[in-house]
Amino acid sequence: MRECIFCMIVRGEAPATMLYEDDDVMAFLDIRPITRGHALVIPKVHAAELEDLDPDLGSRIFRVGHGLALAVRRSDLGSDGANLVMNDGKSAFQTVAHVHLHVVPRQSGDKLRFASGLVLRRSKDPAATAAAIRAGMDRLEQE
Amino acid sequence: MRECIFCMIVRGEAPATMLYEDDDVMAFLDIRPITRGHALVIPKVHAAELEDLDPDLGSRIFRVGHGLALAVRRSDLGSDGANLVMNDGKSAFQTVAHVHLHVVPRQSGDKLRFASGLVLRRSKDPAATAAAIRAGMDRLEQE
Repeated sequence: MRECIFCMIVRGEAPATMLYEDDDVMAFLDIRPITRGHALVIPKVHAAELEDLDPDLGSRIFRVGHGLALAVRRSDLGSDGANLVMNDGKSAFQTVAHVHLHVVPRQSGDKLRFASGLVLRRSKDPAATAAAIRAGMDRLEQE
Repeated sequence: MRECIFCMIVRGEAPATMLYEDDDVMAFLDIRPITRGHALVIPKVHAAELEDLDPDLGSRIFRVGHGLALAVRRSDLGSDGANLVMNDGKSAFQTVAHVHLHVVPRQSGDKLRFASGLVLRRSKDPAATAAAIRAGMDRLEQE
């Protein structure tokens, strides 16, 4: 069985553009973003599906996703909304077997860009994108 | 301004096929389901977007969604996965301005049904569907 890529990121054995980390939860940029700033929030401990995830940890993952959704609105990415999506199970299009919450920043009038992003999923300047989101997180904290 | 339909459901002034209720959170069937058993989890207090929602309450909404995702797998609906989706903001396709988490049950091989459900969104026998999900919740509780 292939090693879990998200567990490798948690252990620092695979690269990721980090946004947030605490003892139990980590957030980083999706390497194939649908929109600019598309982030993933994961539990550090391996859990393939919601079936395997402690509900307390699940609610903490969502809390970090909630914070990211507020942060991108305060960032210079120009977001005024976000899709928070967790695909649980292969039948639900889950592609990495380690629970992850997608936070996909949106902006008014981005429908066409969103649709093409769903197909192309190209990353562009992740370091600058992450810096913008982290600045949004700082602004949120200062409120 | 039109009355919030979800607040009307909370007050019992509009009908809904109920799945779960506690002091702060409510879950009921979407009247235009993408798949059979498509549920919505909402805070009882009005919050238009994540911006207006207490993070503690947000994590409790997700906790109920997590439970529903496990319950539909234990129901007779034949689900083996679910999409948990929160569209936050008009730009993110949020259509009712009261925070809600979609829990969309999925099953292996349902891709075509899912795609047509996205377009048609027809409800069929909600009472039996809700009974099946509640039976799944009971089974989950007895584990």
